Amino acid sequence: MNISEKVIKIAHDARQASLSMARLSSSVKNDMLMKMAAALENATLTLIAENRKDLDAGRQKGLSAAMLDRLMLDEGRIRGIADALREVAALPDPVGEVTRMWKRPNDLMVGKMRIPLGTIGIIYESRPNVTADAAALCLKAGNAVVLRGGSEAINSNLAIATILKSVLKEMCIPEAALSLIPFTEREAVLEMLKQEESIDLIIPRGGESLIRFVVENSRIPVIKHYKGVCHIFVDQSADFDKAEQIIINSKTQRPGVCNALETLLIHTDVAAEFIPRIAAALTALGVELRGDDTFCRLAPTATPATEDDWHAEYLELILACRVVDDIDAAIDHINRYCSLHTESIITSDYSRAQRFIREVNSSCVMVNASTRFSDGGQLGLGAEIGISTTKLHSFGPMGLEDLTTTKFIVYGDGQVRI
Amino acid sequence: MNISEKVIKIAHDARQASLSMARLSSSVKNDMLMKMAAALENATLTLIAENRKDLDAGRQKGLSAAMLDRLMLDEGRIRGIADALREVAALPDPVGEVTRMWKRPNDLMVGKMRIPLGTIGIIYESRPNVTADAAALCLKAGNAVVLRGGSEAINSNLAIATILKSVLKEMCIPEAALSLIPFTEREAVLEMLKQEESIDLIIPRGGESLIRFVVENSRIPVIKHYKGVCHIFVDQSADFDKAEQIIINSKTQRPGVCNALETLLIHTDVAAEFIPRIAAALTALGVELRGDDTFCRLAPTATPATEDDWHAEYLELILACRVVDDIDAAIDHINRYCSLHTESIITSDYSRAQRFIREVNSSCVMVNASTRFSDGGQLGLGAEIGISTTKLHSFGPMGLEDLTTTKFIVYGDGQVRI
Repeated sequence: MNISEKVIKIAHDARQASLSMARLSSSVKNDMLMKMAAALENATLTLIAENRKDLDAGRQKGLSAAMLDRLMLDEGRIRGIADALREVAALPDPVGEVTRMWKRPNDLMVGKMRIPLGTIGIIYESRPNVTADAAALCLKAGNAVVLRGGSEAINSNLAIATILKSVLKEMCIPEAALSLIPFTEREAVLEMLKQEESIDLIIPRGGESLIRFVVENSRIPVIKHYKGVCHIFVDQSADFDKAEQIIINSKTQRPGVCNALETLLIHTDVAAEFIPRIAAALTALGVELRGDDTFCRLAPTATPATEDDWHAEYLELILACRVVDDIDAAIDHINRYCSLHTESIITSDYSRAQRFIREVNSSCVMVNASTRFSDGGQLGLGAEIGISTTKLHSFGPMGLEDLTTTKFIVYGDGQVRI
Repeated sequence: MNISEKVIKIAHDARQASLSMARLSSSVKNDMLMKMAAALENATLTLIAENRKDLDAGRQKGLSAAMLDRLMLDEGRIRGIADALREVAALPDPVGEVTRMWKRPNDLMVGKMRIPLGTIGIIYESRPNVTADAAALCLKAGNAVVLRGGSEAINSNLAIATILKSVLKEMCIPEAALSLIPFTEREAVLEMLKQEESIDLIIPRGGESLIRFVVENSRIPVIKHYKGVCHIFVDQSADFDKAEQIIINSKTQRPGVCNALETLLIHTDVAAEFIPRIAAALTALGVELRGDDTFCRLAPTATPATEDDWHAEYLELILACRVVDDIDAAIDHINRYCSLHTESIITSDYSRAQRFIREVNSSCVMVNASTRFSDGGQLGLGAEIGISTTKLHSFGPMGLEDLTTTKFIVYGDGQVRI
């Protein structure tokens, strides 16, 4: 078999295995995850040895220190991966939940029951922990999973997948429920993206170029997340202490991530009072400010913003700042420039808080809270498989439930249609 | 502007209008639908005159009598279209519903709120009533809608759309919230399917060739439904009277639709007793039976089935019949041959009823009920925009809720991430 044929077989076998996965009880799935965690810890020396091959190859290829660090596995990180599997085991199983049930006039009882999606493909870059994390979430939700990691981590990923599959074999669960595509050629991922009969959903995890490549080449639905241009609007009734704390937290707590603040909007009525204060605080923390005319007049450290700044996902200590006339102007700015990720209003006014919640179209809309809470774990989903900034199927941070769908169930007693 | 440019403009204007639609109150939307119903009835003579142009052209093109009948509008049918709009007005508005809300350990209140999908494209064939029905459902759920009907109904569709848009104008709602692509060229639909920046979802309504064309050419997510190969399994504990009534209803009440029965599975323990009875009843009603060896031995009117029969969506009075050893064999047959549409078990056994509900993967799984109930109206969704046999976003009959998504809403009081 050539590479294409092998990828087709992996996807086809995964589809078959997904039928068995869908029938596993929660206790068997949890047992499986706990055994996988133990198996990874027991194989620490093997994993470190395989990971060293990737690190050596990476150094030869001239990977950056940051890239090499993301790639690296040591005893602590392997324990972290195992603990993450144990956390997934502890989450409630979404499969089988009847989310609603109602009675029809003819006494038919109609409900909706959660079922697995089927087979999920994950395409990701260098971090080998995704191999275990993403697999665990897909399996817990009763799906089969086909993984395709980056070429830099191929030895680490294969070692992790082999250990996880050994647990499936030991428990007589079809091993094809978890597969790692063992080919680093681009041909392999292109073939994977054509298996719409076998794979139900593709989730790419990585940079924008990876995601664009997947979207452009996939025949399978893709849940995608390009970027996070998150906004905070300081309303005229904002508590300045809360506003300052929330803005600083949103911008500086971890500037390189998609839920970090990128644009600050300030109501004109509080501009003169609030801007000097927040500008001084942010400048002291090393944040570069780029503002409109009014902002720059009130903030001596700011430089003029251009149209590009309103679109920018900086992912570093730069903040675009603009003064707006009212909440309508703030919402219009957000709905025009945002990436449908996360926006927050700082206000003590009840009506404007409710308007902001209703009228802003992003996947996560907040009142008086840091944008950094837009994260599956922080919002209480238990774990996060990704963030969707498109509206179909899932919108916003995705947890276990987003790896399921619902079917109609109907309990009758001989009813026929008239 | 050429055709492509005009289609791009229609889609782009729809996206803009969708922002206004999302903010409309339920009462304004209901008022709009009631006025649209009245406007259609008031324009009965115009509609009949425009419809006559389509009928004349259809006769010249040699359309079949059945096709011409589907195309035809008269006073009664126009009243029917208007009444359907009034029914949509009476449905509860899904937009703004908070489906769940929970408290985090840091006292953040996190919830999920239903919001419109945005812009929905409907691509359909000859029935002009779809122009009003589909538009009404999309608008009620707060979306903009771009319609593309079949060329045979172009004059009728344009007349209906013009009347509906006049109500939008009268109410100062952006007219671009409802557009009908006025071009019958294939180029127009191909361009529409490329507007992924403006259109969020495409729903094709029509035959398999239309749906395949849309799926193959769309960059926008498509909710599709190819066919319905529906099964009934008569378990060894089935009440024969109920079984007979349900089978007859499922097969003969309206054989040409996707939720009609196509394959009957019978437990071997009741084959000798039940098959002669059901075969006689079905034969008396004009149903052609195609069975496996055991079935044919017990049913003198049956002819041998081939592998093709297990895959067949007959849409006429033909039924494939097979004897199976147990519920496992029944479920295996269904999961292998079904189209994920609708399957029903006839049983009086509690455990097997529950197993069937859990283990069959179709979008609608029933106990002791006719497959003909698999329909948005019959299941209590109020109205149906289509049926999805793929699992992403929606699975099974789709109502108003399926034209929405959810966003996260977060109520805080100054919380920051630590």
